[in-house]
Amino acid sequence: MSQPTRTEHDLIGDRDVPADAYWGVHTLRAVENFPITGQRLSSNPHLVRALAMVKQAAARANRDLGLLDAERAGAIDAACAEIIGGALHEAFVVDVVQGGAGTSTNMNANEVIANRALELLGCAKGDYARLHPNDHVNLSQSTNDAYPTAVNVATVFAARPLLDALEDLEAAFAAKGEEFRTVVKMGRTQLQDAVPMTLGQEFRGYAVTLREDHDRLEESLRLVHEINLGATAIGTALNAPVGYAEVARRHLAEISGLELTTSPDLIEATQDVGAFVHLSGVLKRVALKLSKICNDLRLLSSGPRAGFNEINLPAVQSGSSIMPGKVNPVIPEVVSQVAFEVVGNDVTISMAAEGGQLQLNAFEPVIVHSLSKSMAHLAAACTTLSTRCVAGITANADELRRTVENSIGLVTALNPVLGYAESTSIALEALHSGRGVADLVLERGLLTPEQLAEMLRPERLANLSD
Amino acid sequence: MSQPTRTEHDLIGDRDVPADAYWGVHTLRAVENFPITGQRLSSNPHLVRALAMVKQAAARANRDLGLLDAERAGAIDAACAEIIGGALHEAFVVDVVQGGAGTSTNMNANEVIANRALELLGCAKGDYARLHPNDHVNLSQSTNDAYPTAVNVATVFAARPLLDALEDLEAAFAAKGEEFRTVVKMGRTQLQDAVPMTLGQEFRGYAVTLREDHDRLEESLRLVHEINLGATAIGTALNAPVGYAEVARRHLAEISGLELTTSPDLIEATQDVGAFVHLSGVLKRVALKLSKICNDLRLLSSGPRAGFNEINLPAVQSGSSIMPGKVNPVIPEVVSQVAFEVVGNDVTISMAAEGGQLQLNAFEPVIVHSLSKSMAHLAAACTTLSTRCVAGITANADELRRTVENSIGLVTALNPVLGYAESTSIALEALHSGRGVADLVLERGLLTPEQLAEMLRPERLANLSD
Amino acid sequence: MSQPTRTEHDLIGDRDVPADAYWGVHTLRAVENFPITGQRLSSNPHLVRALAMVKQAAARANRDLGLLDAERAGAIDAACAEIIGGALHEAFVVDVVQGGAGTSTNMNANEVIANRALELLGCAKGDYARLHPNDHVNLSQSTNDAYPTAVNVATVFAARPLLDALEDLEAAFAAKGEEFRTVVKMGRTQLQDAVPMTLGQEFRGYAVTLREDHDRLEESLRLVHEINLGATAIGTALNAPVGYAEVARRHLAEISGLELTTSPDLIEATQDVGAFVHLSGVLKRVALKLSKICNDLRLLSSGPRAGFNEINLPAVQSGSSIMPGKVNPVIPEVVSQVAFEVVGNDVTISMAAEGGQLQLNAFEPVIVHSLSKSMAHLAAACTTLSTRCVAGITANADELRRTVENSIGLVTALNPVLGYAESTSIALEALHSGRGVADLVLERGLLTPEQLAEMLRPERLANLSD
Amino acid sequence: MSQPTRTEHDLIGDRDVPADAYWGVHTLRAVENFPITGQRLSSNPHLVRALAMVKQAAARANRDLGLLDAERAGAIDAACAEIIGGALHEAFVVDVVQGGAGTSTNMNANEVIANRALELLGCAKGDYARLHPNDHVNLSQSTNDAYPTAVNVATVFAARPLLDALEDLEAAFAAKGEEFRTVVKMGRTQLQDAVPMTLGQEFRGYAVTLREDHDRLEESLRLVHEINLGATAIGTALNAPVGYAEVARRHLAEISGLELTTSPDLIEATQDVGAFVHLSGVLKRVALKLSKICNDLRLLSSGPRAGFNEINLPAVQSGSSIMPGKVNPVIPEVVSQVAFEVVGNDVTISMAAEGGQLQLNAFEPVIVHSLSKSMAHLAAACTTLSTRCVAGITANADELRRTVENSIGLVTALNPVLGYAESTSIALEALHSGRGVADLVLERGLLTPEQLAEMLRPERLANLSD
Repeated sequence: MSQPTRTEHDLIGDRDVPADAYWGVHTLRAVENFPITGQRLSSNPHLVRALAMVKQAAARANRDLGLLDAERAGAIDAACAEIIGGALHEAFVVDVVQGGAGTSTNMNANEVIANRALELLGCAKGDYARLHPNDHVNLSQSTNDAYPTAVNVATVFAARPLLDALEDLEAAFAAKGEEFRTVVKMGRTQLQDAVPMTLGQEFRGYAVTLREDHDRLEESLRLVHEINLGATAIGTALNAPVGYAEVARRHLAEISGLELTTSPDLIEATQDVGAFVHLSGVLKRVALKLSKICNDLRLLSSGPRAGFNEINLPAVQSGSSIMPGKVNPVIPEVVSQVAFEVVGNDVTISMAAEGGQLQLNAFEPVIVHSLSKSMAHLAAACTTLSTRCVAGITANADELRRTVENSIGLVTALNPVLGYAESTSIALEALHSGRGVADLVLERGLLTPEQLAEMLRPERLANLSD
Repeated sequence: MSQPTRTEHDLIGDRDVPADAYWGVHTLRAVENFPITGQRLSSNPHLVRALAMVKQAAARANRDLGLLDAERAGAIDAACAEIIGGALHEAFVVDVVQGGAGTSTNMNANEVIANRALELLGCAKGDYARLHPNDHVNLSQSTNDAYPTAVNVATVFAARPLLDALEDLEAAFAAKGEEFRTVVKMGRTQLQDAVPMTLGQEFRGYAVTLREDHDRLEESLRLVHEINLGATAIGTALNAPVGYAEVARRHLAEISGLELTTSPDLIEATQDVGAFVHLSGVLKRVALKLSKICNDLRLLSSGPRAGFNEINLPAVQSGSSIMPGKVNPVIPEVVSQVAFEVVGNDVTISMAAEGGQLQLNAFEPVIVHSLSKSMAHLAAACTTLSTRCVAGITANADELRRTVENSIGLVTALNPVLGYAESTSIALEALHSGRGVADLVLERGLLTPEQLAEMLRPERLANLSD
Repeated sequence: MSQPTRTEHDLIGDRDVPADAYWGVHTLRAVENFPITGQRLSSNPHLVRALAMVKQAAARANRDLGLLDAERAGAIDAACAEIIGGALHEAFVVDVVQGGAGTSTNMNANEVIANRALELLGCAKGDYARLHPNDHVNLSQSTNDAYPTAVNVATVFAARPLLDALEDLEAAFAAKGEEFRTVVKMGRTQLQDAVPMTLGQEFRGYAVTLREDHDRLEESLRLVHEINLGATAIGTALNAPVGYAEVARRHLAEISGLELTTSPDLIEATQDVGAFVHLSGVLKRVALKLSKICNDLRLLSSGPRAGFNEINLPAVQSGSSIMPGKVNPVIPEVVSQVAFEVVGNDVTISMAAEGGQLQLNAFEPVIVHSLSKSMAHLAAACTTLSTRCVAGITANADELRRTVENSIGLVTALNPVLGYAESTSIALEALHSGRGVADLVLERGLLTPEQLAEMLRPERLANLSD
Repeated sequence: MSQPTRTEHDLIGDRDVPADAYWGVHTLRAVENFPITGQRLSSNPHLVRALAMVKQAAARANRDLGLLDAERAGAIDAACAEIIGGALHEAFVVDVVQGGAGTSTNMNANEVIANRALELLGCAKGDYARLHPNDHVNLSQSTNDAYPTAVNVATVFAARPLLDALEDLEAAFAAKGEEFRTVVKMGRTQLQDAVPMTLGQEFRGYAVTLREDHDRLEESLRLVHEINLGATAIGTALNAPVGYAEVARRHLAEISGLELTTSPDLIEATQDVGAFVHLSGVLKRVALKLSKICNDLRLLSSGPRAGFNEINLPAVQSGSSIMPGKVNPVIPEVVSQVAFEVVGNDVTISMAAEGGQLQLNAFEPVIVHSLSKSMAHLAAACTTLSTRCVAGITANADELRRTVENSIGLVTALNPVLGYAESTSIALEALHSGRGVADLVLERGLLTPEQLAEMLRPERLANLSD
C-alpha cells in the first residue's frame, strides 16, 4: 500500500508529493537537485525562525496596505507564529548548500507556511487557489530581499550564544588572573626566557584580549541590522507597493526585537555581502586569538617532567590508549581545530563574496552555512574551554618562583644601572658557568646586596601595582 | 524508573554508562568534552569501517605472534567483521571534531569492539577482566599508529565515489563535445570576442581537463597507501613485538583489498601529515577547475535575451519566487559553492598541518573531517552536475553561427596575409562602422572573394581535423 | 685598494663594517642572516619615518625625565628629524622579511640614528662610548614596544593614500551614476535577465558600496592608534622609568600628528596583533568588492558583438599581439589580481597571528610586510581604475533600451496584477515563440493598451524618483 | 635640453619613446597602466630568459617553415641569444602585476627583441617596416601560447635552486641525525612527555620528510614540461602554419635543454592553469613542513633555563635590544614567515585560477608572480636554515638523558608486562609522589632489578638497530 500523495505543478510539470507534507513541489525539486551535504535547513533553527519572522512581517505589512485580506493574513501570521515557536522545523528539508541564491530556501518557507495556513483555514494542503505560496505568502517579496533579510536576523540570533560564551571565557580567565596575581614566573619572548612577570598578568591578558574581540564582534553585528526588505528582485522595489519597505521593516523589528534599519540604497544592498565578509573577518580574529591562547596553555602545561610544567590543566579524560597516566591538553586542542575551521570558512566566504555578479550574489547559501558553522562551533569551543579547562587550571607556584630565581633574564633589570655591555658580559658568564646573575653582580662589586635585593624584588620586576 | 547502567572506571574515576551501550567510559568522557559540531563519527562510515579493519588486522597479527589467545582473537575478529559489514556504526558517537589526536576515536572503537566481542563470548558488556578494550583490542597498537592507518584506508574508500563521479562527468562533457562537434562559435579571451572555434572543442576541453584531474587524484591517493601501523606511540615501535608491523600490514592489506606498504621511517610517518596536505591540494585543484567550468556554463547560458545565450541548461526547478518563467543555473551554482568550501577546507588543513608539534600532529581529526567533507561534497557535486545539467545541455547553433559571421575577430585570420597594421585598420573600421570584416576586405581589394571564402571557412578557422 | 672600515663588536664577536656606513654590526648580521626577498626596509618609507618618530619621541621623553643629557638628546632628535624629512632611508638595509620579531629593524634604526647623531656631535661613526645605539637611542625601550608602535604609526600613514584613492574611485562611480541616470537596462540575477533598472543605479551602487568600505577602513584604523610604547620587553615596563609611557606617547602624538593612546593592558598589547588581523580583514573586504565590481565591468563590456556590450571601457593599450583591434579590460583585470593578492596576504597574516607564542608574536615582520603591500597595491589599483577606466566609460544606450523592450523579465511587472501562474504561462510562451510579453498580454485581453503602457513605463520599472 | 625621442604608433595613437629605449609604445602604455608593485619584469630573470628562448625557438621555426627570411630570423635569433646570456634585462620594465593576460609582457619582449635585432641589422630602433615586433618577432604566435610557454620554462629554471636548497637542507638534517644517533631523549606527543627516542631519530625524520617533499616537487614539475606553443590565441592554432607547433617545440627543447612536450589538447591547455595550482599546492606542502620543523627547533631550543633546553641553535646575532645575552631562534622564525607567505600565495593562485573564463585565464601574471616569489623565498629560506642554523646545532646530551631517567613515560615500556591498569597506577603514583617509575616497580615487587634494567635499556626503548 503506497503512501497517499497530492499532485502539485510548477514550471516544469506535475509532481506528486506526500499528502501530509507541508512542503510542496518547489521543495521537492530542490531536494532532488541538491543532495550535497545531507544537512537540512532544519539544522539551522535560527534561520528557520527568522524566515518565519520575515514572512509574518510581510503578511502584516500586506494586510496593513490592503493587499492581503484579513483571513489569509491571519492564517499566514498564525502559521509563522508556530514556526517561530519551534514547530514545523522538520519540514525545512532542503540542503543547506544549494544553488539558486536562496530561492529554494525561500520557497520551502513559502510552501510550509502556505500549507500550514491552509490547514488553519480548514482547507486541504495543496489548495493553493485558496492560499498560494507565491501569490500570498511571498506577496510583495522576492527571494532576493526576503532571504537576505532572514539571514541577517538569523545571524544576530546565532551570534548571541557566541557573545555569551566569550564573556564566560573572559570571566574564567579574569578569575584566574586574580587567583594567580602574585605567582611570579619568567615571561618569554620567541620562546626564550625573557624577564619576570606574574602568571596572573598572563591570564588577565587573555581576559582583556577576549573582551576586545567581544566588542569587535558586537560592532560588526551592527552592520547586519541593516536589511533590504522591500528591494524585491534587484533593489528597484518592483512589485512592492509604495510604503511597503517601511511598514514591513517596522513589523519585523517588532517581531524580532531587533533595531533594524532599511538600507539607504537597495540596489547596492541587494548585491552586497560585505557585512558577512566583515563579520567573518571578525570571527577569524576571534578564532586566531583563541588558538594562540590554547597554544600557550599547551606550552605552559607541557611536561610534566620534560616541559615547561608551569600550570596543570584539569584531566578530563585518559590521555592515551598506550601510555598510562598521560594527560593531554585535549580541550585546547579541540579549540584550535575549531579555529582552523573558522579560518577556512573565512576563505570560503571570501571566494563566494568575490564571485557575486551584477545585481545578486548567487552564493549566499554557502556564506550563510559557513558563517553559521563558524559561530556555532566557536561558541561551543569557548564554552568547553571555560568550563572544562580554564576553570580548573592550577599553578605550580614553587617551581615557577625557582625558575625566576635561576634565570639569566634577571640581568635585564640591571641593564639601566650597568649598561648593555656590562649586562651582556654578566649574562654570558651566567650562561656558560651555570651560575646565577645575582652572585656575579655581587662578586664583581657592581651593587651592594641591598641595592640588588631591591632591584630584583619580584613585585617590582612584574610592575604590579601594590 | 531509570535506565539500567553499568559502572566503568578510568584514570579520573568511576562513571555509569547505559548497561546496553557498546561504548564505555572513555567514549562517554569524549562525548562530554567535545560537544562541538553535533556530527558523530558514525557520519563517516568509511572511517568506522576502516577502524574495524585495522583492529581486525591487529587481532590477527597478535594471534599469529602468540600475544592473543584464539578465543579472544576470534571474538574481536568477529566483532570487527560485523562493523565492517555495516553493523554497530551507531555506537560511534564521539564528535568528529575532537581533541586528543584521535585517541577518543580509537577508544570508541576499542570499547565498541570489546563489548561486542564480550557479547559474542557470552559475557556481559563491561566485563573487561575477560576482554579489555586497551589490553586486548588495542594490543600492540597506539592511537598514533592505529588511527592514522585507519584514516589512510578510509581515505582511499572515500575517494572512490569521487573518482567515479569525475569519470562520469568527463564522459558527459565528452559526449557533448561529440554532439557539438561542428557547432561554430566565437572563442573569447578576457571576455572579448576573439577567434572562431566550435562548441564541441569547448566541451571536449572540459572533458580533457577533468581527466587530468582524475589522474592527479589517483596519483595522490598512492601516497596514502603508505601506513605507519606498528609505529605505536611515536614511531619507535615500543611495545609492539618484533615482526608485528609486517604481519599486521599483510592482514590489513588482505582485509581492505588495498596494496598497503609500511613507511620506511616510522618516526617521520607518525608525525607527518604531508600526504593529506597533498591530497587536499589536489582536491582544491579539482574544485577550482569545476568552479571555472561552472562559471563558463553560466556565462554561456546567460540571457535568454540580454546575455550570451549560446547554450541552454536544462530547467530543473523554477528560477524565482517573483520572476515567472525565469530559469537559473542552479546546478552550476551549487557546484561552485562546493568548490569554495573545498578551498576553505584546504586552508583549514594547511593550518592544522602547520600546527603539528614534535612527534605527533594533534590536529588530525579536523584534517580528516575536512578531507572527508571535501571528497563527499565534490562527488555529490560532480554527480548532480553531470546528471542534472551537462547531460541536458542544448546549443543555440543558428545564433552561434550568426555571431561568428558578424564578428570582428575574423580579421585575425587575415592577419598573416595582411599584416598587423592593415588588419588593425580593418578591425577598427568594422567596429566603428558596424560593418562586416569581409565586406571591408573586399572593398579595399585586398583579397578576391574566393581567397576570402577559403580563409574564412569555419572548419578551417576552428582547425578541426576533417 | 680596499674600502676603509671600522670595527664593531657584538655578542658574537668583532666585525668590520664600511667606515662610512650609518648602520653597524647588528644590521650587518641581519643582512647576512635574512637574504630572503631582496626588498629592504627602505622600500617602506612609512615605516622608516615612523621608526624615527618613535626614536625622537623616546629621546625627548628620556630628556624630560632626566635620563638623557640635552646634548645627546638633541643630537638624536636632529638625526631623527632628518630621517623623518626623508634623508638616510638608504641606510635601512635589512630585508623586510626577517626573524627576531623586529629586533633587526629596531637595531638598524638605532644604529643609523646613533651614527648620524655622532656625526652631528662632531664624533666619528662607531664612537659608541660617546653615544650608543642601545644605551642611548634605545633608552627606556625594547624592540617589543618601539617596533610595534612604529608599525602602528606607519600603518596609519600607509592607509591614507588608500583612503584617498577609495574616495576618488567612489567619486568616479558616482559621476557615472549621475551621467547614466536614465539609461534603462535589464538587471540580472544569476546572470539571467531579471527586471529593468538603470545603468545609473548600477554605477551609483558601486559608489555607495565603496563608501561603506571606506568608512569600515577608517573605523579599523582607529584600533591602530592604540600603542604599547612604554611596555618594554613584555609589557611589565621593566627598565622604563615611571611616567615614561605617558610622556613618550605625548611626544609621539605631537610628532606624528596622530591621536595616539596608550593601551590599558600593556602585557596584552605587547603580544596581540588583533588590530592588524582586523585591518587586514577589512582590506580583504575592500579587495573582494573591487574584484566583484571589476568582474561586472568586464561582463558589461564583453563583446563587442558576442557579449553583453552594454558599456565601453576606454582603450588604454592594444589588446592583443595577434588579434588586431581587440581591446581588453586590462585595468579591471589588474585590479582583480591585486585583490587576489590581498586575500592571500590576509591568509599569511592569519597564520602569522595564530603563530604568536606567550608574551610576543615573533612574526610581526611578515604581518607588516603583507599589510603594507595590501595597502599600497590597493591604493595603486584604485587609482588606475578610477583614472584609466571608470572615468572614460561610455554607455551603449540605444542597445540597452532595445534589450529591455525585448525582455521576458518585463512580465515580472505584471505579476501582481496577473498572478504568478498566468505570468509564468506568458513568460513561457514568450520564451518559446520568441514573441514579446506585451503582445501576448494584449492578445490574451488581460490588460488594455493604456494599462499596459503605464505598467511598463521604464522609469516606473526602475523606481526612479522623478 | 630634452631627451631625444622617436615616435611610435599603436591602436590608440602616436607616442614618443626615448630614442635609445629598446622597448616601444606597447611597453610604454603598459608601464603607465600598471603602476602597481614597482617591481619590474627584470626582477624575474628566469622569465626574461625564457621569453627570449621562446622567441628564439619561434624565429627558428618560422625560418625552417619558410615564413621568415634568414636575415631577419638571424637577427632575432642573435638578439634573443644576448638576452638569454643576461643582457638587456633592464629593458623589461613592465610591472610584474599587470592586466591583459601577459600581453604586455609578451609585447615588451617583442619590442626589445625587435629593436635589438634592428640594431644588429644596422637599422635604427623603431624601424619596424624593416623588422616588426608583431609581424616578425611574434610571428606564428599569440601572447596566449608564447607567454604561458615561457612561464613554464621559467618555472622549471626557478625551481632548480629550490630543489638544490632542499637537498642541502636534507643533508644537513641527515648529518645531525647521524651525529645525535645515540643521544637519548623523551619523545613528546601533544607536548606531553611520551616515550623515549633519540635526538638522532628526530633529526633523521626531518631529513626523510624533506626528501619526500623534494620528490613531490620534482613530480609536479613534470607537469609544466607540457607546453601549448602553437596554440596561438585560443588553441585552434589559427595563423600558425601546419607543423609549426612541433618544429617550435623541438627548437625550444634544444634551446632550453628541457624535455618539453606539446599538450594533446591545445584548447584545454590554453585556458588551464592546473599545473600551476598543483605546483603551488606542493610548494605549500613544503612550506608547511618547513614551518613545522622550525617550530620544533624553537621548542627544542627553548630556555635556556625555563624551557626544553634540549638543543642549542647557533647564535647568529644578538637577540634583543634590551635583554643582554639573549639569543633568539631568528633563522627558524624567518623560515616560518616565508612559509606563511607561501600559504598566502597559494590562496592568491587559487583565486586567480578560479577566475579564469572561457578560453583564457587573464590572471596568469599574478599566478606567475606568486609562484615565483614562493619558489625564490623558499629556496632562500632553506639555504639560510641549513647553513646558519641546522649545521651548527648542538645537543645538551646529559640533560636529555636525565630527563629520560626521570620520566613517567618509561612506564609505557612496562605496559605489555604489567597491563594498562597496573601501569596507570604506577604512573599516577610517580606523578603525585615525584618518585621514579623504576623505584615503584621494584618496591611493588613486579619485576626483578635485572628484568627492569633490560626493559629500560634506552637503545631498546628507542628501537635502534644496533
